[in-house]
Amino acid sequence: MPDCPTCGFSINADRLWASLMELARIGATPAGGNARLALTALDGQGRDLLVRWMREAGLQVRVDAVGNIFGVRPGRSGSDAPVATGSHIDTQPTGGKFDGCYGVLAGLEVMRCLQERGIETEAPLALVIWTNEEGSRFVPVMMGSGVHCGVFPLETALAATDLAGLSVRDELQAIGYGGGEPIGSVQPRCYIEAHIEQGPVLEAGRQVVGVVTGSLGLRWYDVVVQGQEAHAGPTPMPLRRDALRGAARLIDQVLAIGHDPAFAPHGRATVGQVQVHPNSRNVIPGRVHFTVDLRHQETPVLDVMEQRLRALVDRPDAGLTVQLHEVQAFAPTPFDPALVARVRAHAAARGHAHQDIVTGAGHDAVYMARVVPTAMIFVPCKDGISHNEAEDADPAHLAAGADVLLDTLLQQAGVAGRQRP
Amino acid sequence: MPDCPTCGFSINADRLWASLMELARIGATPAGGNARLALTALDGQGRDLLVRWMREAGLQVRVDAVGNIFGVRPGRSGSDAPVATGSHIDTQPTGGKFDGCYGVLAGLEVMRCLQERGIETEAPLALVIWTNEEGSRFVPVMMGSGVHCGVFPLETALAATDLAGLSVRDELQAIGYGGGEPIGSVQPRCYIEAHIEQGPVLEAGRQVVGVVTGSLGLRWYDVVVQGQEAHAGPTPMPLRRDALRGAARLIDQVLAIGHDPAFAPHGRATVGQVQVHPNSRNVIPGRVHFTVDLRHQETPVLDVMEQRLRALVDRPDAGLTVQLHEVQAFAPTPFDPALVARVRAHAAARGHAHQDIVTGAGHDAVYMARVVPTAMIFVPCKDGISHNEAEDADPAHLAAGADVLLDTLLQQAGVAGRQRP
Repeated sequence: MPDCPTCGFSINADRLWASLMELARIGATPAGGNARLALTALDGQGRDLLVRWMREAGLQVRVDAVGNIFGVRPGRSGSDAPVATGSHIDTQPTGGKFDGCYGVLAGLEVMRCLQERGIETEAPLALVIWTNEEGSRFVPVMMGSGVHCGVFPLETALAATDLAGLSVRDELQAIGYGGGEPIGSVQPRCYIEAHIEQGPVLEAGRQVVGVVTGSLGLRWYDVVVQGQEAHAGPTPMPLRRDALRGAARLIDQVLAIGHDPAFAPHGRATVGQVQVHPNSRNVIPGRVHFTVDLRHQETPVLDVMEQRLRALVDRPDAGLTVQLHEVQAFAPTPFDPALVARVRAHAAARGHAHQDIVTGAGHDAVYMARVVPTAMIFVPCKDGISHNEAEDADPAHLAAGADVLLDTLLQQAGVAGRQRP
Repeated sequence: MPDCPTCGFSINADRLWASLMELARIGATPAGGNARLALTALDGQGRDLLVRWMREAGLQVRVDAVGNIFGVRPGRSGSDAPVATGSHIDTQPTGGKFDGCYGVLAGLEVMRCLQERGIETEAPLALVIWTNEEGSRFVPVMMGSGVHCGVFPLETALAATDLAGLSVRDELQAIGYGGGEPIGSVQPRCYIEAHIEQGPVLEAGRQVVGVVTGSLGLRWYDVVVQGQEAHAGPTPMPLRRDALRGAARLIDQVLAIGHDPAFAPHGRATVGQVQVHPNSRNVIPGRVHFTVDLRHQETPVLDVMEQRLRALVDRPDAGLTVQLHEVQAFAPTPFDPALVARVRAHAAARGHAHQDIVTGAGHDAVYMARVVPTAMIFVPCKDGISHNEAEDADPAHLAAGADVLLDTLLQQAGVAGRQRP
């Protein structure tokens, strides 16, 4: 791997990999994955390990009231807002070793490199571990970054309970991470997060780095097709009001919206959930409920996609009625174009095959983009599989992404003796 | 209602209706239906009422080892096999007042008419109440007629248990209907069963009587469409292997087999059950299971329909695999053409709007057709609804069907002073 043309060095790929594997021992599953749910004792052990590593790398650790951990590396200009990176170390119940952890440990690896080379930056740097990104145990998801960015109040987060009735407030205390730092007291000047892609695009295109330009907007709908339940044997075809026949045709047409080249490459239409009533082998379905998930990176295009959806449900098959309800919506979030351009330039300078990409999944960076200039760096994951114990990634790809992170952080923070941007 | 041109009289429509309503008090549900599951104490009460009515109508009651009740009315030719009618009085858990009960009480009404007019038939007549036709509490369904007709052994029926672990053997004893009559000791010479249609055909055609020509053959299949589960956000449309997209298209095409005019009017294709995995709003389905139910009254046509089905699953969409398994099959059962012709002629002679029809649902008559000449008489039910507390029927239609039953039974048995057929 070539050293960075601007920085003159690269991260230590072996150390990055070894740290990922060491963190993955905490909550390791027999199938090779990780189960380290937010604010469990295992999450506490993971945090303890990271805090030790942060301090060993010369970072000043501060924990805020929702358990977000900020490891700050002072810069020459002491009081400046830091250039930040980070992610999360909580996992899904049957999660993998890379989702979130990669972003945290790539950031740590950058800090370690700077420490061992004695490099001082102009602005401070910060490595952030956000609390409960996954939302598997407590909702809302992306809890720590959501509170930090003012998306919902601290009290909402602290009052959230898991299925056993345990609260975020109590579980933070139990693992020793209900910190004294006020929310927002560490406010980065910009934020760059490295992450595995969690999709198949980079692998399919034989790319090493994904330059993330923003996140897709999202709209969720419920659709109910109503017909007439009847016995399969005695009811001739022309007299049926088969809700499933109508639903099957609608589902195919809804998916066709996503496949329409007019909305490519970032248009998505998904039907994930179907419930058939009464769902009996010899009964013609009287009612079918299904969900629709539409995504695109531009609100006006999402509007057009939604119009297409509404037009479909407005002309049901004879004998059927169809109802559509919007249940949730998130606007598209573009990342900071200047910061994205720097990520792109560093990937190119390193000679890594790279492409622009959008994130369809939520990340702490999507909330951070609401308050400070933000970018993300994606690396491929094997077969595009994530939220799965089979999640895997190529050490060379992980190193490549961390190098681009190093370059971008240094350029943003400014290196002593060089011009800050 | 005109009297029968051959018999010179009609059944008592008011008495038939009153008896239906009196039986329906036993196990009546608040919503107006009936819950009188097989071999419960309520079924015992219903049987006791019917046995009393049978004896009052001059029938000699015999109960066999599986609880089938035979009420025999002697004929002039004492030892002849009887001409039989009947049905069942057990119901679904949320059943109606007419399914089964109508056939039993129409037969009883015929016996009452003959008694009050002092009419003697040449051959004996028999009214049969079959045990556990519904199969809601014990399987196999159509248990009493199945044992009688040798479809499965007596021991299979007696050993069957309900969800509480109670056996047919013990529950028969508990209600006093484990009879001493050997299976098959009363073997009718022919069998005619009256029943509500349980479908919408007669009502849609404004018909009063359905002349049932036989039962549809039935084939049940399981289909599994396998793709690749993936997150809805990060996975572009062209890289998806969406099992639900493939399943939705297949379901529409499978239903189109039923709608093909080549298989009309008796071809049926139903997809009643769909299971989507993992069935989560923002996950592209990796696997979909659905059932297929194909029906037709001719085996060669069912073969063609099955070929069409197999051809569909043999060319799955790209990225998907499809598996098909046949899980059960029943051959079509034609009823006795001569007996069916007599039912048709009597309906016509009574001046009732009538049409030929097939039964898509199972009935005791379908098993009886395996061993003796058999026919069925259908009458409309409201909106085609059955197996439902809302089940309803027009008293005039019920009377019309019972009149046709009267005529057909008398013609088959021969009336003293007339020529037996």
